[in-house]
Amino acid sequence: MSSAPLSPCPLCASANAPALWRNDKLRVIAVDDADYPGYVRVIWLAHAAEMTDLGDADRSLLMQVVCEVESVMRDHMRPDKVNVAALGNMVPHLHWHIIPRWRGDRHFPDAIWAPPRVPAGDEPEAFRRMLQDAAGRVPAFHDRLQERLSVRFGRATCAT
Amino acid sequence: MSSAPLSPCPLCASANAPALWRNDKLRVIAVDDADYPGYVRVIWLAHAAEMTDLGDADRSLLMQVVCEVESVMRDHMRPDKVNVAALGNMVPHLHWHIIPRWRGDRHFPDAIWAPPRVPAGDEPEAFRRMLQDAAGRVPAFHDRLQERLSVRFGRATCAT
Repeated sequence: MSSAPLSPCPLCASANAPALWRNDKLRVIAVDDADYPGYVRVIWLAHAAEMTDLGDADRSLLMQVVCEVESVMRDHMRPDKVNVAALGNMVPHLHWHIIPRWRGDRHFPDAIWAPPRVPAGDEPEAFRRMLQDAAGRVPAFHDRLQERLSVRFGRATCAT
Repeated sequence: MSSAPLSPCPLCASANAPALWRNDKLRVIAVDDADYPGYVRVIWLAHAAEMTDLGDADRSLLMQVVCEVESVMRDHMRPDKVNVAALGNMVPHLHWHIIPRWRGDRHFPDAIWAPPRVPAGDEPEAFRRMLQDAAGRVPAFHDRLQERLSVRFGRATCAT
């Protein structure tokens, strides 16, 4: 892991990769993290670093999409909390993390970037079952998210 | 540090504490962190956990304030990056962190919630001087932030 920003920008390089949903401004991708089933990133298509590099209308659109993700995530993934963050220290290309959190997850109540409190595989059996159930709801979450984004923002989806 | 949400809610309990700026919906406070001079939190006044617990107008207002903080922070604190996050795992009362980040800061390029890469006091002298200069700009940052928020959102400031 380098302390310098990556070049060329991996989020520009992957702009055409499969997404849960996209329009001409942004794309919504599923993050494959077994600890956080349902984790989603919303990535601005143009290479901008900060929210304040966007105009008001674009900022508003981006946050409406982030909130739509959060809303459908709450309905389908049933997390105890949602974490929303735009960091971009390693990849300074504007993207939002929308992360479902559960009491008892490996980092709870810390941020997922903190050291885990629970070693991998050491979660209590009841928690593992809960997480497995949540993972089973991811396809329905994605379907509903594609539907909601398409209805609200009116552009075609692009299957993962 | 408990893994259960704190009760009573410390952000409700501190609702009337001094703030850089407040209106009837939210308050903006300075976070005292020597590693991150200029760090600010924007705290929703009502006890809501998630962005999607707010209506559209309130979400929009909150993000406009967050972006105004980011904008003035960029002008005055001159960070290499700004980190914006709403986590709330420990205190599930909606609040946004707006954190100025510099290449070479103790956690860069990781999140500030990750383990520090540089032990306290081990920063190179040039970085320490840069951070000291940044700390010296905090009062002007706060003054300008109060002014900008008051002009844009039209409510009285409340001095720290």
